[in-house]
Amino acid sequence: MLAFDVFGTSVDWWTGITCQVTGIAAARGIDVDAAALAGAWRDRYLPSMARVRTGERPWTPLDTLHRESLDDVLDELGLADRFAEAVREQLVRCWYRLPAWDDVAGGLDRLRGRYLVVALSNGGFALLTHLAKHAGLRFDAVLSAELARTYKPDPAVYRTAAGLLGVEPARMLLVACHGWDITGAANAGLRTAFLERPGEKGPDHTADRAVDTSADLVVRGVGELAAALGC
Amino acid sequence: MLAFDVFGTSVDWWTGITCQVTGIAAARGIDVDAAALAGAWRDRYLPSMARVRTGERPWTPLDTLHRESLDDVLDELGLADRFAEAVREQLVRCWYRLPAWDDVAGGLDRLRGRYLVVALSNGGFALLTHLAKHAGLRFDAVLSAELARTYKPDPAVYRTAAGLLGVEPARMLLVACHGWDITGAANAGLRTAFLERPGEKGPDHTADRAVDTSADLVVRGVGELAAALGC
Repeated sequence: MLAFDVFGTSVDWWTGITCQVTGIAAARGIDVDAAALAGAWRDRYLPSMARVRTGERPWTPLDTLHRESLDDVLDELGLADRFAEAVREQLVRCWYRLPAWDDVAGGLDRLRGRYLVVALSNGGFALLTHLAKHAGLRFDAVLSAELARTYKPDPAVYRTAAGLLGVEPARMLLVACHGWDITGAANAGLRTAFLERPGEKGPDHTADRAVDTSADLVVRGVGELAAALGC
Repeated sequence: MLAFDVFGTSVDWWTGITCQVTGIAAARGIDVDAAALAGAWRDRYLPSMARVRTGERPWTPLDTLHRESLDDVLDELGLADRFAEAVREQLVRCWYRLPAWDDVAGGLDRLRGRYLVVALSNGGFALLTHLAKHAGLRFDAVLSAELARTYKPDPAVYRTAAGLLGVEPARMLLVACHGWDITGAANAGLRTAFLERPGEKGPDHTADRAVDTSADLVVRGVGELAAALGC
């Protein structure tokens, strides 16, 4: 059984957010560095979830965290008065529509011929369901950290997924492009595959690298993963 | 957004269970009326879930209820000593592999072109995921009563599904072939479509009829539903 991370691993959030911010801002005559906004917004992703994961704050859905982080970023960039409430809501919904990397749809179909393949992401259940459909990605099921009411890399997220699917954690392979996700899955007893996405954070930031992780397997695309697994 | 019931509505449990019981019994030289066993087993389905729903017993997964009901049925039919532990486990797993009705796969694909379409069943999450894959049914997501830790027709099941999908219950249409499911969904605020499956319980039992329900819509197949919804 394979569990795919989504943001970065399956879909190109950086291009998706940058392009949508560009379009939304242009339509309203707002001058903004969309790539900078996308990067600063995503920089707040892990810290915002960590506050839930560590118990500093109660369970909070990712859409709410995205909105709070966006508000912070707009304050920081001095853009707060340019982005009205409705535009902010529209921007939060951009995370529901992100393009898949070219290798994913076909690779998933190959893998699904032999394995059960699910999504397992910190995105909310609604977000992931819409995102997979919009990006044309066929998973056998969508699983969200929301079902465990905490966030990866908390072991509860991986174990809740395995429990719902009726398998031992050691029978699941987590596929992800982030070292922290690989480590979290390994701590929960899963097998791991690091999928390299050097462009995940755009041209000006460095993505996580395979050499910094201890995954069971390292691949450069879903097609390569399918081949490695005999599909 | 459309939520499809599964057993009876999307898949033909009666044929699937009867055929698998026949095969498993024949392979072991056990003489059994497979249709009678299938019917008696399913007769225990609603009462077994009602004990969880009413709080008479704590949350219990459907696989466990299926197993307990099977044990009771084999006792009642005087077959207890013919069915060893391993065979009973195999029989419980038969519910993971049931054939779809002919109209479902194509009808779902039509509906998915315009709507988000999910499964919403009393089957466990693992069962439903395997069942949909095996039957070749493409849902946008699988949702199980297990996520609410109770069973339909408890309103919590329908509302948990709507909550996870981020929509008001009134924006969901439940499609089901059972009057109790239609009533439960309506009580939770959903719209409802009764899908007639006159053969759902096999040739010797009467299936639920549209005239006994108060669904918003009555159809005789998923294709007819797709046409009614403009797909």
